[in-house]
Amino acid sequence: MERSIRVLRVGQRYVRDDRTLTHLCLVSRALGAEAIYLEDAEKDVTATLDEVNRTWGGDFEVVLGVTWRKMVQEARKEGRSVVHLTMYGLPIQEVAPKLREVDKLLIVVGGPKVPGRVYHEADYNVAITSQPHSEVAALAIALHEIQSGEELKRTFRKSRLRILPSARGKRVVEN
Amino acid sequence: MERSIRVLRVGQRYVRDDRTLTHLCLVSRALGAEAIYLEDAEKDVTATLDEVNRTWGGDFEVVLGVTWRKMVQEARKEGRSVVHLTMYGLPIQEVAPKLREVDKLLIVVGGPKVPGRVYHEADYNVAITSQPHSEVAALAIALHEIQSGEELKRTFRKSRLRILPSARGKRVVEN
Repeated sequence: MERSIRVLRVGQRYVRDDRTLTHLCLVSRALGAEAIYLEDAEKDVTATLDEVNRTWGGDFEVVLGVTWRKMVQEARKEGRSVVHLTMYGLPIQEVAPKLREVDKLLIVVGGPKVPGRVYHEADYNVAITSQPHSEVAALAIALHEIQSGEELKRTFRKSRLRILPSARGKRVVEN
Repeated sequence: MERSIRVLRVGQRYVRDDRTLTHLCLVSRALGAEAIYLEDAEKDVTATLDEVNRTWGGDFEVVLGVTWRKMVQEARKEGRSVVHLTMYGLPIQEVAPKLREVDKLLIVVGGPKVPGRVYHEADYNVAITSQPHSEVAALAIALHEIQSGEELKRTFRKSRLRILPSARGKRVVEN
């Protein structure tokens, strides 16, 4: 199945939390999402991801300045299922079989300030364990489970550099 | 199989990178490791994890001030396999079947300043994709793959609070 997965970050802290944000973008890109949507305009993150695309390939997109309501409305219109990751939701291992059959997904990654409405607007509220840990880890496992590990095998078009996996050391080739 | 998984953080940046460190600790705890070993003495992280244990249960340990060489030596002595996570390593999907048969593991999570020796001392250098992303995500997927998703089902003894997974909203009970 050809899948379209987009990621939306909601409820980030007002204090800058760049590293988590950058990690969410990089994980989305590396693990098979086509774009991430951010509420705040974080120009640094866009520049970082542009550079990663240039070096490592693909055309992952960072879209800035969207509101979560508008994104969820648009998802509805195009028949995209909205999956909100939260430690209060239903276990991923129970929901994953259903999610694997969906071809268009918007994965909503909550930060500390998620509006309560998000729980009600989402088609699925999904927990990666009911323990506190990390939205970066939760996103990674959700992407991995939904795509049944197939995302690990993907390649990125038009990269400048490419790693040759090896048992010891670092092997990188220029394309 | 009864598995013992420990995590070691190596090569953290000298500038404080507390959020990533806290996430590594929380992910290790939530996804089935018994302890994390940190080179630097980050007292804040210890206090945070103590509080998480008190509230959410279990006896996950944060051990401060170890050197990676000593940890790897000890791992050798007790027959513990050393798995170094690096984007230059062999794909997790190829190595995982072997790792699932090992009962004692030390997972080494590299930061930006990993000494080159780590690549040579590790029994396995393993990549969660050969793309740049996040050590937090890499650790999560490694733990998930090694334990075949079983880690998602574990419970934590002696918790003060417990979440009742739900399709909408937040349900938390006191034990």
